[in-house]
Amino acid sequence: MIILGVDPGLAHTGWGVVETRGSLCRARAYGCVGTQAHEAIDSRLGRIYDELRAVIDKFGPTELAIENVYFGENVKSAVATAQARGVAIVACAKAGLTVGEYTPMQIKQAVVGTGAADKHQVMYMVRSILSLDHEPHPDHAADALAAAVCHANLRRTVQLTDSRRALQ
Amino acid sequence: MIILGVDPGLAHTGWGVVETRGSLCRARAYGCVGTQAHEAIDSRLGRIYDELRAVIDKFGPTELAIENVYFGENVKSAVATAQARGVAIVACAKAGLTVGEYTPMQIKQAVVGTGAADKHQVMYMVRSILSLDHEPHPDHAADALAAAVCHANLRRTVQLTDSRRALQ
Repeated sequence: MIILGVDPGLAHTGWGVVETRGSLCRARAYGCVGTQAHEAIDSRLGRIYDELRAVIDKFGPTELAIENVYFGENVKSAVATAQARGVAIVACAKAGLTVGEYTPMQIKQAVVGTGAADKHQVMYMVRSILSLDHEPHPDHAADALAAAVCHANLRRTVQLTDSRRALQ
Repeated sequence: MIILGVDPGLAHTGWGVVETRGSLCRARAYGCVGTQAHEAIDSRLGRIYDELRAVIDKFGPTELAIENVYFGENVKSAVATAQARGVAIVACAKAGLTVGEYTPMQIKQAVVGTGAADKHQVMYMVRSILSLDHEPHPDHAADALAAAVCHANLRRTVQLTDSRRALQ
């Protein structure tokens, strides 16, 4: 299964493509779509849409794992992030991907084992789980890979539970 | 000029198409994209994208007038609205429309003459300005038409100012 993880943001939308085989995960690619505050909103959102569509066309993921917007930050910042998130979801929906949504806490819990993990712990564990040569940068890309790993783990848990039920 | 006005929202995205000739505005069509809370987020946002693209294909607007997200409401609601707003902007951007953004206060000021106007005053004035047989419903469609009227008025003001400057 190929999963596209996305950490949405108007200025920085991180993305990461993870391929799973059984319990193994490996990163196919990752990156970040950057836009500038002085650009028009349609140009910024249009680029997020286009670049995610290009990633989907290139790597062929079938599932999207995307972070929920964190309500704790200020409203203006949450609204900017939410616009980018809507665009990311629709870019994936138009390409036929199914969508899994996770809170930042669920993602940290899945990769580090605690929802209170900091940015560096997430980068360290993403590197370790995906056997990368170095920690993925920027942190938006690391968070996107972490979302994909979280999705892969939860999917596997569901599948294992289902197969155990079938054996009983 | 044909303007598409949009009042974005995850549950209700109002839209209205307004055609301008000189100082005259008339409504070509209006409506509302409704989605249900129990539907998946990709399905809801996908429908907003698809229905707005169908409106654009049918009426051929070249400019989008869209409401800004009102930060005064609760963050959860603002985030839901912002996701729909991002999708609406990208649907228009992919179809080549230019984008005008207006606060709810600017829109009310433009159609009623006061930024403190209520929903019924907006409906009444939208009906009057666009010479409609009846008040446009639902209020999301009326707000979308109001955004388009606001855009038309501000565009005309800019053009008049420019032509006066050219004559001096």
